[in-house]
Amino acid sequence: MLPGAVVLAGGRGTRFWPLSRRARPKQVIDLTGQGTLLACTLARLDGLVAPEQRLVVTGPDMEAVVRPECGGASVLVEPTARNTLPAIAYGVWEAARRGAEAVIVLPSDHHVADPACLDAALRNALGEAESGALVTLGVRPTRAETGFGWIEAGAGGEVVRFVEKPPRAVAEALLAGGRHLWNAGIFVFRVDAFRAALVRRAPGTAAALAALDAGAPLAEAWALTEATSLDYAVMERHDHVRVVPLDCGWSDVGSWPALDEVLSPREGGVGVAADVVAIDSSHNLFHAEGKLLALVGVRDLIVVSTPDAVLVAHRDESQRLRELLQALDEAGLVRYT
Amino acid sequence: MLPGAVVLAGGRGTRFWPLSRRARPKQVIDLTGQGTLLACTLARLDGLVAPEQRLVVTGPDMEAVVRPECGGASVLVEPTARNTLPAIAYGVWEAARRGAEAVIVLPSDHHVADPACLDAALRNALGEAESGALVTLGVRPTRAETGFGWIEAGAGGEVVRFVEKPPRAVAEALLAGGRHLWNAGIFVFRVDAFRAALVRRAPGTAAALAALDAGAPLAEAWALTEATSLDYAVMERHDHVRVVPLDCGWSDVGSWPALDEVLSPREGGVGVAADVVAIDSSHNLFHAEGKLLALVGVRDLIVVSTPDAVLVAHRDESQRLRELLQALDEAGLVRYT
Repeated sequence: MLPGAVVLAGGRGTRFWPLSRRARPKQVIDLTGQGTLLACTLARLDGLVAPEQRLVVTGPDMEAVVRPECGGASVLVEPTARNTLPAIAYGVWEAARRGAEAVIVLPSDHHVADPACLDAALRNALGEAESGALVTLGVRPTRAETGFGWIEAGAGGEVVRFVEKPPRAVAEALLAGGRHLWNAGIFVFRVDAFRAALVRRAPGTAAALAALDAGAPLAEAWALTEATSLDYAVMERHDHVRVVPLDCGWSDVGSWPALDEVLSPREGGVGVAADVVAIDSSHNLFHAEGKLLALVGVRDLIVVSTPDAVLVAHRDESQRLRELLQALDEAGLVRYT
Repeated sequence: MLPGAVVLAGGRGTRFWPLSRRARPKQVIDLTGQGTLLACTLARLDGLVAPEQRLVVTGPDMEAVVRPECGGASVLVEPTARNTLPAIAYGVWEAARRGAEAVIVLPSDHHVADPACLDAALRNALGEAESGALVTLGVRPTRAETGFGWIEAGAGGEVVRFVEKPPRAVAEALLAGGRHLWNAGIFVFRVDAFRAALVRRAPGTAAALAALDAGAPLAEAWALTEATSLDYAVMERHDHVRVVPLDCGWSDVGSWPALDEVLSPREGGVGVAADVVAIDSSHNLFHAEGKLLALVGVRDLIVVSTPDAVLVAHRDESQRLRELLQALDEAGLVRYT
């Protein structure tokens, strides 16, 4: 089966402010010093999906910052943001038009420490998908995370059920039970299986693809789609869904403290800087690209320096960046957001 | 008496690193956002000393960064750094050559909150100096500072004695006693009284000025001077020394925490930034010229952002900047110092 790839790069988010901005979302920032998350996502497809079969879906206002990170991949611009299902369906339709028989769907803003391991898991998933199953990759959980979807895996690799963002006590039970995996948002399926599933689970989106087949303009087809997620509309309801484990140092890179999962420790903590000198300082998170970072007697801080803004926050307060951006809005300082 | 001014701008120091550097010492940095300390020092002479009577003494390697801050003042370049006495003597000699009968000596890197009050104190000191006394300005102490020289003032304004950098217990006693003032390094005297004092207290420097009178080149005269301070060689030993109180919001701006003495409180602490937004943050010291500074859940930090370096330090650790610069040297990162 010739595989195509649909990379979802329409997301927004401010959790990496001031490095990420309204106009420069997380997938197009270089958190690691090794390239943007989007460019790294595409590079991990080398050897598995040909560049002309790589499709990056994004919104019209992000096209300009997304395109430079796409290398040989093509950019598909969705008319409006309508959650993941329409974006994925559009990508699958275009991949099929280009000859793909199966499609790998990937978020553009996650990190994988071991790309060879991801490659093996995706090949494994392509094998599983040959049967017509919709396949999702499941990450071995390492903490009782309440912000993720969890997947209960049966003994034979079948998905028993999805558990969306469980409360703390439930998440702890799922972690302890050992039968649940995290939903990483990576999906693999045959094009025809996906379209058949749409017909049953998301008929509007199925109709939209039929309209595209018939030559309708994208904006017209778009109006027919369900504005919902693939997980909710299809994966959680479909009867032939399988899960393939992913044990590759995966991180959703959810906020500044996730740098700990993504980068190796260095003097003073983890992060990007031209040079670091630290005295009596540890466990900090930083991003000061091209600069010297000097730390004296500080611990547990987030330090970010960009050309127009400096952030210093306690690492336990990273979720309060939302408040900070609100304060900027209220102070008439939207230009920094 | 026509007054001249000698402003000492030969100092080095790293206590405002990374804003101050080897090649850009404290007197030529803009700590307050209102101009460099040197430019502010010169501006405080407006109305008292004519620009052509203002002499800024600095070293050959600092001339390039000092000159742009001098406005209408002249720059005197000392052949080598030999402490304050030769620099002051050279300045006084040049001021006299330009017609000055009295001279005001000022450090270039201090702050005065109330310039009108300084002006009054200097006029007062010029009056006192008419008698032939060497006059020093004494700052009303506000803490048991062990890093300063203290001056015991007699009831009639005469100096009883100087106490150089007292131990903590002594400093506390001096503060409690109420008869001591801080030596601010600001001196006022008649030119002839100064030269007469040199003959008795620093004959080498007196000879150097005589050599200049006779047309000797500066480098030759320089070799005759005592490499010592005016305080040590002359003020502390001379018999006709008077003190005029200075109560004008003076600060020697000794290190980052001195920003508290120099700037008004604003959101998040004190310091320079284009904008500040702070959540649950206070008592910080910062310098992020032209940038937004964003603080979340942090207190008592020093945050400095320059084009090539970012410093985050605990405010109680500012004296460890010396260690930090040593670490940079040892790591081969001298370019940041």
